[in-house]
Amino acid sequence: MVSFECDYIAGAHPEILKRLAETNMESLPGYGMDHYTASAKEKIKAACGCPDAEVEFLVGGTQTNAVIISTMLRDWEGVIAADSGHVNVHESGAIEYAGHKVLEIPGKNGKLEAEAVRQLLKKFYSDVTHDHMVFPGMVYISHPTEPGTLYSKTELEELSDLCHEYDIPLYLDGARLGYGLMSNESDLTLKDIARLVDVFYIGGTKVGALCGEAVVFTKNNKPAHFMTSVKKRGALLAKGRLLGIQFDTLFTNDLYFKISRHAIDMAERVKEIIREKGWEVYMDSPTNQQLILMTDEEMDRLGRTVVFDRWGIYDDKRTIVRLATSWSTTEEDIAVLADV
Amino acid sequence: MVSFECDYIAGAHPEILKRLAETNMESLPGYGMDHYTASAKEKIKAACGCPDAEVEFLVGGTQTNAVIISTMLRDWEGVIAADSGHVNVHESGAIEYAGHKVLEIPGKNGKLEAEAVRQLLKKFYSDVTHDHMVFPGMVYISHPTEPGTLYSKTELEELSDLCHEYDIPLYLDGARLGYGLMSNESDLTLKDIARLVDVFYIGGTKVGALCGEAVVFTKNNKPAHFMTSVKKRGALLAKGRLLGIQFDTLFTNDLYFKISRHAIDMAERVKEIIREKGWEVYMDSPTNQQLILMTDEEMDRLGRTVVFDRWGIYDDKRTIVRLATSWSTTEEDIAVLADV
Amino acid sequence: MVSFECDYIAGAHPEILKRLAETNMESLPGYGMDHYTASAKEKIKAACGCPDAEVEFLVGGTQTNAVIISTMLRDWEGVIAADSGHVNVHESGAIEYAGHKVLEIPGKNGKLEAEAVRQLLKKFYSDVTHDHMVFPGMVYISHPTEPGTLYSKTELEELSDLCHEYDIPLYLDGARLGYGLMSNESDLTLKDIARLVDVFYIGGTKVGALCGEAVVFTKNNKPAHFMTSVKKRGALLAKGRLLGIQFDTLFTNDLYFKISRHAIDMAERVKEIIREKGWEVYMDSPTNQQLILMTDEEMDRLGRTVVFDRWGIYDDKRTIVRLATSWSTTEEDIAVLADV
Amino acid sequence: MVSFECDYIAGAHPEILKRLAETNMESLPGYGMDHYTASAKEKIKAACGCPDAEVEFLVGGTQTNAVIISTMLRDWEGVIAADSGHVNVHESGAIEYAGHKVLEIPGKNGKLEAEAVRQLLKKFYSDVTHDHMVFPGMVYISHPTEPGTLYSKTELEELSDLCHEYDIPLYLDGARLGYGLMSNESDLTLKDIARLVDVFYIGGTKVGALCGEAVVFTKNNKPAHFMTSVKKRGALLAKGRLLGIQFDTLFTNDLYFKISRHAIDMAERVKEIIREKGWEVYMDSPTNQQLILMTDEEMDRLGRTVVFDRWGIYDDKRTIVRLATSWSTTEEDIAVLADV
Repeated sequence: MVSFECDYIAGAHPEILKRLAETNMESLPGYGMDHYTASAKEKIKAACGCPDAEVEFLVGGTQTNAVIISTMLRDWEGVIAADSGHVNVHESGAIEYAGHKVLEIPGKNGKLEAEAVRQLLKKFYSDVTHDHMVFPGMVYISHPTEPGTLYSKTELEELSDLCHEYDIPLYLDGARLGYGLMSNESDLTLKDIARLVDVFYIGGTKVGALCGEAVVFTKNNKPAHFMTSVKKRGALLAKGRLLGIQFDTLFTNDLYFKISRHAIDMAERVKEIIREKGWEVYMDSPTNQQLILMTDEEMDRLGRTVVFDRWGIYDDKRTIVRLATSWSTTEEDIAVLADV
Repeated sequence: MVSFECDYIAGAHPEILKRLAETNMESLPGYGMDHYTASAKEKIKAACGCPDAEVEFLVGGTQTNAVIISTMLRDWEGVIAADSGHVNVHESGAIEYAGHKVLEIPGKNGKLEAEAVRQLLKKFYSDVTHDHMVFPGMVYISHPTEPGTLYSKTELEELSDLCHEYDIPLYLDGARLGYGLMSNESDLTLKDIARLVDVFYIGGTKVGALCGEAVVFTKNNKPAHFMTSVKKRGALLAKGRLLGIQFDTLFTNDLYFKISRHAIDMAERVKEIIREKGWEVYMDSPTNQQLILMTDEEMDRLGRTVVFDRWGIYDDKRTIVRLATSWSTTEEDIAVLADV
Repeated sequence: MVSFECDYIAGAHPEILKRLAETNMESLPGYGMDHYTASAKEKIKAACGCPDAEVEFLVGGTQTNAVIISTMLRDWEGVIAADSGHVNVHESGAIEYAGHKVLEIPGKNGKLEAEAVRQLLKKFYSDVTHDHMVFPGMVYISHPTEPGTLYSKTELEELSDLCHEYDIPLYLDGARLGYGLMSNESDLTLKDIARLVDVFYIGGTKVGALCGEAVVFTKNNKPAHFMTSVKKRGALLAKGRLLGIQFDTLFTNDLYFKISRHAIDMAERVKEIIREKGWEVYMDSPTNQQLILMTDEEMDRLGRTVVFDRWGIYDDKRTIVRLATSWSTTEEDIAVLADV
Repeated sequence: MVSFECDYIAGAHPEILKRLAETNMESLPGYGMDHYTASAKEKIKAACGCPDAEVEFLVGGTQTNAVIISTMLRDWEGVIAADSGHVNVHESGAIEYAGHKVLEIPGKNGKLEAEAVRQLLKKFYSDVTHDHMVFPGMVYISHPTEPGTLYSKTELEELSDLCHEYDIPLYLDGARLGYGLMSNESDLTLKDIARLVDVFYIGGTKVGALCGEAVVFTKNNKPAHFMTSVKKRGALLAKGRLLGIQFDTLFTNDLYFKISRHAIDMAERVKEIIREKGWEVYMDSPTNQQLILMTDEEMDRLGRTVVFDRWGIYDDKRTIVRLATSWSTTEEDIAVLADV
């Protein structure tokens, strides 16, 4: 059996485990005050071309979204997101737990369109009763999106311009950011993203780390007393070294980008197999997740040798099946898939 | 100038003021422990044909929705509502402030369709990742709805059956309940509602009271230690008599129903005027609110003698105008409107 | 039977009911946008000698405390209060419901001592781990305090200076403010309070109104989008006129002060009776509440003609009994008490 | 330089790193559904002598406290804790963030005394206004306590009996549980604890793991839909294997107990050095933390070769210094300390 179930099926990239082992017995201060964490921050700021950025590390994606959104929104505000956005669907209400509404807009292939956001904003401010409503106080996008699509540079610029016009931050959830940046179809660099958005996170959990996400505040906008707010939300890791060392490793010698590229290469091979097999594509994706439609019979055959994810129900006969590659996908995995 | 702006433009029905004055100097215990409150509860239970119901009084509608929803939902649950539902749009995120998500469904003329709710419930339980999602734990409807439409008995029965099938409570927001019950098109009585829903409130603020809503728990389902939860939410009125005396008056000699009927009679007169004037109807309503479309010119003319509500923007040329009647609408008001 | 149970046993001062009746059928905008509310605000600002103050009306005391504290604190902050403070004991956790900690300090006769607050602040900032703690972000005092004592001008100045030194707001809960201001022992005027504190509320519920508290922001410090935050907490009254007309009446011709003075006069009579009867004083109070110690036998006798409050258990034999006067206490009430 | 700063200065026990490396490339399901997590649960249940217990893994201590307390308390309840309890002092208000009050009682050497808890409970239920107060709904203790003291079996039995008498759960925060269990002065076994408390956690972060705490529900009392509530709080780790493998290792061949015993052996050596040096003991501790009093001069000298924690200010001249041992303390560390 091989697995294309998701991009967090394996442990950590071996280089990370090696660094954890090498540094294991060093006495280090807790809560992210260690020098590995400091070094990781510097490397990430350099990679972002943003020397004035502020970087903080958190443990997981839902946690990061809840911490960022709830510390950056003001009391009377909510966050705009696509209806398919992770914060709107798959976080068990973590944003609402923090007291804020997700203002959903129908997305297009998982993406928020600037024009739709503009309509929401215009409508809100033209409504005479808007003091009785939740103010749109932030725009949330995921890149790659949940179904694996990508914003173009033009699309991101439009959202960025719109947010600045309305003076609200643009927040990019980069749980799978590496797989977006290294996609053949990406015309966005990490520096573009750092320039165009106000805050984003670089996902570690799905791109080679045991856990961990790196939040980048790009506009001198880190919330005051951020550590205390993180602690208040139960999100402060005592051994901050676990996050610092992992990200220091990922941002040494471009490891983050190299392993992301590997996943894309493997995904291109998966796409070839899909074409060869004649499996029906549900949504075309230039990143590490491929969504196809399968009947129960097809899934039975696939399931004999391959672990996959039932992403959703399509119709009475077909299920949306996800095949995900990652930094850990091997040639052997591909060979088994090709042999189905 | 006369006003058709909304249904809370006047103070209280004169009978209420009279009772407040008559009882004013009586020494009464606080927090709803007085005998007027007790009497009001008994009268409401009788009117509902539900002797085992439990009745509690709160101050306003948003407060009531937040208290009921947050004390009846469990931690992992959210509340299903129409996209146009008051809890989803016009409560500044009060439900989310209490930590719960509003699971919105596109409504039809302001109403939730049982079939759409069923699809959401089926989809939720068929999703293998539903442990990462907000569980649908209650269905919220408003009756009359925000644009003034009504559920038929059949529609309410379908929703009731569905909720019982999934073992989740059906909650009816009756901010304007009197205007629904006394509509010419209503085939639902108060007893029907008490039988079909699990909890609802009878609106006082918009139907003759200075303030106040009467919550009716119909299925022996009042949350434990409800008074403490109400206090915790800042919603416990010290002089509970203010609510008790008002509702005791409203439910003496059918006052609540009589004044509601008066508003419906006035609304029928408004509808005649709309027809005569040839004003375009936005949504046909059998209750006390009439929504029409007007150009700026038309609004200018109307505004010379009539106060009205700009309910929303329809298109570049036209605004949705609301003309609301209430218990306090007079023949003179109608005459002025007819003369526009 | 006469009642000295508490200061909210009666309805409203008759002048208020008269004004409510006179204005009852006027068409007025909702949510505090009416001219009575505007007038009340002006009168209160004048009475406070603070033309730049911002005044807002809310319904009840716990609600007011929760709204003010949670909109003025920042995410990482809590509120300092005496252990006996209303927010710490008798609000069912309303402050914590809003996500903030009450940092309690042992009080002295219900009062916070500036020196004790200073020690807490010094200790907090000297603690190297204070990033893991709740920042002291506001000082809460009640005046009169829960057991009826008063801050002197010197004591309030000390707290005010200390708060300004640490740049945190001083908040005064004036649920019974009138009874404090008109006490024979008060050396504080309303203008002093407006000058020395950053935000406070003038209690209506316990001083002649059916409901209502007037919040005064004295330092140009009303939270942004306050109405939306109020709505979000379920605290926005649709018929704001109910609050505006009541406070407009209370602040016309010094009614608020006159009726407060009456309660103090009555309280002085109660104190005389206590002395004459030889009842043991629990805590000496210069305001409208007198706390005495009684055995079960004494309470039995008192209870034959007088309703009173069992304030707390003192020891195995004695209960702390509260006798409260108010604007509604009459000569007859006093006569009955004297005859016990 | 050697470090006695705290018990989380090192990475993970080498055996844990070895297991992480060995299992690193295995494809495993996420969110704790892997077989290592299942195995860890079984081993912990066996160690607890509690085959019916339910075990769940979370990432850190504050997170665990917030998740457990907020999912087990009901809306109207708060948690009783010693004033020095971690939840009351050093979690930045995480419990209040979840909407619940910490009901503090003065502790004795960091411990809650059953008699003091009983007084609080009796007083609460004898108070006629307790519906306006926060109900005591759980008792929180830490074992070892924050300053390193231990409950005796008799003390824990008293608390357990009291909680059962009042039908509220007893929750034990075992962030340093190993160091308590292996103390020379402990008369409590893990099985005793599992029997006497309703829920507790076995700390990993401070006892050999990179991160992770194992929650044990001992009375068939795991909250319903616990995974969803964990997700809602941002506390669900995608790669649950990281927690499962670590605890599986710790509970194989008694590793958890052996490394805890090592820390106690090292602490006994530290106590000898303290005696030899004549350093003043602040509070006698039978566990891995020793608190002593030092002048600035003494700290200067100590600080030349030893990293330590300034635990608090004692008086104008002396600071409370903490010397902590852990599983990672070495003979060399002890030798350097002895040479100060």
